[in-house]
Amino acid sequence: MTPEELTPGSVRPGGRTARVREAVLQAAGDLLAERGFFHLDLAEVAARAEVGKTTAYRRWRTPTGLVIDLLADMADQSLPHADTGSLLGDLTANAQLVAETLTDPRQGRVFQAVISAATCDDVAATALHRFYDIRLTEWAPCVHNAITRGEAPDGTDARAVLSAVSAPLYYRLLASGDPIDDLAASTAARAAASAAAAGLFVTVVE
Amino acid sequence: MTPEELTPGSVRPGGRTARVREAVLQAAGDLLAERGFFHLDLAEVAARAEVGKTTAYRRWRTPTGLVIDLLADMADQSLPHADTGSLLGDLTANAQLVAETLTDPRQGRVFQAVISAATCDDVAATALHRFYDIRLTEWAPCVHNAITRGEAPDGTDARAVLSAVSAPLYYRLLASGDPIDDLAASTAARAAASAAAAGLFVTVVE
Repeated sequence: MTPEELTPGSVRPGGRTARVREAVLQAAGDLLAERGFFHLDLAEVAARAEVGKTTAYRRWRTPTGLVIDLLADMADQSLPHADTGSLLGDLTANAQLVAETLTDPRQGRVFQAVISAATCDDVAATALHRFYDIRLTEWAPCVHNAITRGEAPDGTDARAVLSAVSAPLYYRLLASGDPIDDLAASTAARAAASAAAAGLFVTVVE
Repeated sequence: MTPEELTPGSVRPGGRTARVREAVLQAAGDLLAERGFFHLDLAEVAARAEVGKTTAYRRWRTPTGLVIDLLADMADQSLPHADTGSLLGDLTANAQLVAETLTDPRQGRVFQAVISAATCDDVAATALHRFYDIRLTEWAPCVHNAITRGEAPDGTDARAVLSAVSAPLYYRLLASGDPIDDLAASTAARAAASAAAAGLFVTVVE
């Protein structure tokens, strides 16, 4: 084992450790998409990634360890917020992005799998919450800009508005099974924009 | 094995088969709440329910089989819709009910577990969708009454309105981890009622 493998946090990007991680996370995502978290097997991930089983067990330890690292990697992939000039335009862009992700055959199942893993493990849950925290924070300027433009009142909670856009689409994916189509995405955006304009997401600060 | 055990669908409620099922589903729910779907073990459920392991394996076969039967049992437990005289009142009652369920230490974790199971198995997913279909249908009269009272336009999709109430609360449970508190429940109800009044849930029928 090389020194860089012993201290993965300190290596330069593109080094051997980074390549191993990329291959393992790619294989983990593929297997999660194919069969879900319940059937994720570390040895199988290592074999598919063409990485030594010992390396995989030493670094990720458990299927949950893999999911936690996958979530960290997903959190690093920036999805810059829209800037269409209107709140409805920005929220519609956000809803379409979420709908595309959740209906993508691979991505949708990966999201189901990581959410499933988070229901069984507190550290995975923390990694999941951090992922959504980053996404919600990244898109907050859409709501701040809307407040500046006078489309929503001062004190409107950006996180609540953006959660309201995503939530109906996730509810379809995880609970009702109703289709995540263009109508669902545009309705989610329009309902959130309308409720924001009506001041329903203003946070009361005492 | 008695004849009634061989044909469980045909037995009278309260018979031995019904008592076995009740004990097993209770134990399954307890274990799901304690450790999640990933760690559900049929032999352990049987032991805790004080039911023969052979009976449990013959009847439920797998942890997923248990979850599917638990969902059928949950679907049978009626939660009659509110009738407060206003759409906002009814949706607030619905939001409070959902929030209470999801924050209940046992129930919230059972919901996470059955949703997790549904991500790994198509039959469990079908059972889960059926459960939500029944709940959403049971509360649809709240929206129909609102249309009659003129609080929402004709053609308003009751299922979409009720999904909009639940969705932000489920999003907090399963994705963002944000608290499911009174403010979250009342905001979900108010945003859904406001969007419904604005005609945003009208289904366009060509």
